Amino acid sequence: MSKQEQSRTVAELAALVGGRAVGDVGASVRHVASLEAAGEGDVAFVEDEKRFETARACRASCVIAPEGSASKLEGLKSLVEAARPKLAFALVAEALRPSQRLPAHVHPTAAVAESARLEEDVYIGAGASVGEGTSIGAGTQVHSNCVVGRGVTVGRDCVLRPNVVLYEGVSLGERVVLHAGVVVGADGFGYVRDEGGVYHKFPQVGTVIIDDDVEVGANSCIDRGALGVTRVGRGTKIDNLVQVGHNVEIGERVVIAAQTGISGSTVIESDAVIGGQVGFGDHARVQSGAVIGSQAGVLPGKIVRPGVWWGTPIQPLEEYKRLNALWGRLPRMREEIQELKRQVKELLARLEDKA
Amino acid sequence: MSKQEQSRTVAELAALVGGRAVGDVGASVRHVASLEAAGEGDVAFVEDEKRFETARACRASCVIAPEGSASKLEGLKSLVEAARPKLAFALVAEALRPSQRLPAHVHPTAAVAESARLEEDVYIGAGASVGEGTSIGAGTQVHSNCVVGRGVTVGRDCVLRPNVVLYEGVSLGERVVLHAGVVVGADGFGYVRDEGGVYHKFPQVGTVIIDDDVEVGANSCIDRGALGVTRVGRGTKIDNLVQVGHNVEIGERVVIAAQTGISGSTVIESDAVIGGQVGFGDHARVQSGAVIGSQAGVLPGKIVRPGVWWGTPIQPLEEYKRLNALWGRLPRMREEIQELKRQVKELLARLEDKA
Amino acid sequence: MSKQEQSRTVAELAALVGGRAVGDVGASVRHVASLEAAGEGDVAFVEDEKRFETARACRASCVIAPEGSASKLEGLKSLVEAARPKLAFALVAEALRPSQRLPAHVHPTAAVAESARLEEDVYIGAGASVGEGTSIGAGTQVHSNCVVGRGVTVGRDCVLRPNVVLYEGVSLGERVVLHAGVVVGADGFGYVRDEGGVYHKFPQVGTVIIDDDVEVGANSCIDRGALGVTRVGRGTKIDNLVQVGHNVEIGERVVIAAQTGISGSTVIESDAVIGGQVGFGDHARVQSGAVIGSQAGVLPGKIVRPGVWWGTPIQPLEEYKRLNALWGRLPRMREEIQELKRQVKELLARLEDKA
Repeated sequence: MSKQEQSRTVAELAALVGGRAVGDVGASVRHVASLEAAGEGDVAFVEDEKRFETARACRASCVIAPEGSASKLEGLKSLVEAARPKLAFALVAEALRPSQRLPAHVHPTAAVAESARLEEDVYIGAGASVGEGTSIGAGTQVHSNCVVGRGVTVGRDCVLRPNVVLYEGVSLGERVVLHAGVVVGADGFGYVRDEGGVYHKFPQVGTVIIDDDVEVGANSCIDRGALGVTRVGRGTKIDNLVQVGHNVEIGERVVIAAQTGISGSTVIESDAVIGGQVGFGDHARVQSGAVIGSQAGVLPGKIVRPGVWWGTPIQPLEEYKRLNALWGRLPRMREEIQELKRQVKELLARLEDKA
Repeated sequence: MSKQEQSRTVAELAALVGGRAVGDVGASVRHVASLEAAGEGDVAFVEDEKRFETARACRASCVIAPEGSASKLEGLKSLVEAARPKLAFALVAEALRPSQRLPAHVHPTAAVAESARLEEDVYIGAGASVGEGTSIGAGTQVHSNCVVGRGVTVGRDCVLRPNVVLYEGVSLGERVVLHAGVVVGADGFGYVRDEGGVYHKFPQVGTVIIDDDVEVGANSCIDRGALGVTRVGRGTKIDNLVQVGHNVEIGERVVIAAQTGISGSTVIESDAVIGGQVGFGDHARVQSGAVIGSQAGVLPGKIVRPGVWWGTPIQPLEEYKRLNALWGRLPRMREEIQELKRQVKELLARLEDKA
Repeated sequence: MSKQEQSRTVAELAALVGGRAVGDVGASVRHVASLEAAGEGDVAFVEDEKRFETARACRASCVIAPEGSASKLEGLKSLVEAARPKLAFALVAEALRPSQRLPAHVHPTAAVAESARLEEDVYIGAGASVGEGTSIGAGTQVHSNCVVGRGVTVGRDCVLRPNVVLYEGVSLGERVVLHAGVVVGADGFGYVRDEGGVYHKFPQVGTVIIDDDVEVGANSCIDRGALGVTRVGRGTKIDNLVQVGHNVEIGERVVIAAQTGISGSTVIESDAVIGGQVGFGDHARVQSGAVIGSQAGVLPGKIVRPGVWWGTPIQPLEEYKRLNALWGRLPRMREEIQELKRQVKELLARLEDKA
């Protein structure tokens, strides 16, 4: 695999991120690195003032730092002031390492069906399969031992890391990245029980459509729709070991952390943020702008409005924290009740005495 | 892959499901579809009266509907009245698309051991391996890049989707479906710690036996027994990313939703229903007829009786809901206690006054 | 795969585990088995006195039993008394079945890069790939359809079960065992959002270093560091479907059960024990000697001290159990409050009467 890092000058990086270059603005930068590890040819970043001391000792050719911080970071070879250093660093990293291109190549051990259509500059790794009637867009990489079924559409500049499986008929947009072991389009989990207790499979003959710029983490699973479509919208990012059930609709720019599971027909609207190990019952709806904390549980059919949520069943975060704090006070509350009972009993006795 | 959908007349479908055909009973049906998407040649179903208006606008050649509903669904090309429309629809789908047969074929890039025994009509995909002494039953499909170890027994008409791994010596019955990335027979998780803190592997030399008609979802793992056997009973359905530990025994017609984990030696009796993300400690026992809600936690050794359960540690659902509702009233309870303390203090003061 | 079980005499086994042999000490033993299944040539073990009756009926050639128990276990063919029978049994199993060696062999369908370096006695299975500049240590097995990226270092005597994926540049020590479907070195989950709501990938260009004697269960994922390193220390054991995020540091002899997820930059110190389905926020630290129960949730940045912990957010186990018990008493507490309110109201009324 060729690395294809590209070199840029500090002045070019500043222009790229709309920042201000200070110091040796002609210095050449090729790699991103941490403040601690960076050396000649590297660019690092610092955002938090607590890390300025570490930054001052940094040996990078360039450090990206907050606006107005140059005077506090003297002694560096060069510096780019940016409004949001971490974002600028991410943009610089994209520019320096513009997704690794592999040479156009079909490995002799790959099994590409005759009716499959590969556009220009496609890479098909060793042992990969591409099924009948499938099309693979220009510049796309299908790494070793991927299995792309029949009738699949893969857009341009996608990266399928090793051992990805695309079941028949599913569709990926452009620049989709699927990490190793991802399974797209397996049958949804739906059965109907007969009088004898036997489960009959509800037909799982729909498909999956994944839009542009989606990234899915290793060993995650996105099931096909039963009769309809499971959708993942543009720019959504899904972590490892996530389960997306049949007919789920995920909007654009949604973030879902590891090991979360989404049951059938649930809708996650655009710009939602979902923590790790969250569980969604079926037919729930998460509205745009909702943020759901890790390990939370969303009941079937629940509508989750904008705001921050946590717990099982989910509640507004502030409410959850308040209740959780009270939970810790339960022993004290119980003592208070006992004490009250004792006092009231005594009061009653004294009144009886007086009567 | 050939699709092999078969066409049936509406009258044949009605006979198949024990229903009553109305309208153009000679019309030919080939595919299942949703009410919204169905057209010429499709069969759809409607169960809930709320969906009758959608059903009336359906362009399917046939709609399966509840008994006695024909008069409310006029204008359809044809209709099959059935006692349980969704079940009838599932049965019809099975008849129209009788598990896709692949042609008997061993791909030239597959690695089949000389001593392996393939019965008639076996399909072995590109890059798949079959180990020494393994036998594969008639009509079974081993898709691309599956790895079937040595000494494995696979029954008739099984489907191993791509990248399934069967470790040495495990055994599958007939019509077992394993989705992509399933791992059967990996070592169980058992170690013994010595005085120096070092973990020594407890032997994991047992096996796995999966009975007929089991379906296992993508990337799920079923570990081999340590010394004995991990079993999955006939007709059980397991969703994606489920973990089944060593020596677990799962009965017949059990349903287990995604991301649930079952620790070693736990027993799930027949006809239990388990939600998603449930966790089981070791040596627990779920009795036949128990239903466990999603994200529940079952403690080691716990016996779960018939009924519906939820929470961690699990409690009867009704009890759990009652306690959960009270949890939300904690702030009110706390205020009431404070108010009582104030009132009692005042009462005491007044009594003192009088005294 | 050759089995290579080795036979030992009972006397040899006793010497191996520092125990005392009784009975036919010259009998030959080849396999481990359970008390119930053991027969001629097998060794079983019994630790719990409740199982002594089963042990007396055991037909094994040798039973490993607690010190001083020989007199209670008469009639066995032979017996080895050991201080810790289960540990002795594990050690005996290691001796009888010293990790299955496969013959040195590179399968003709494997794709090994020219610049890859294989030491002696390496096994590369069918359809496996080994990338440019990668080195594989002596005696290591890379099973069928594994994909080992470029620039990877794998130490001696490792076992990579089928379909393991090692991304470019990661490093394994010696005797590391990775079960089927494990993914090491996929990109960590890190993005920076711009003003338009678009997520830009934070660079994930670090690596993973796994030390000697680590075992990782099927379909688990260990992400590469963003800029730095994700580490797993010597002798640590990780179960199936576990997620280890970028820049996580796991110490030595840590045990992590199935489906646990560890967010970025969290540190698990040596000798910690982590249950199944536990979730860790980022930048948490688990100190050496901490034990965390299944399904627990550790908040970001939390420091978990030695001791036993449970719940979300985690609390000391004893505290958690106490609060949980009180939770069950909430209905009673609520009734008590209502009763107190009634009594206080009555008291007030009586006082008013008197006034």
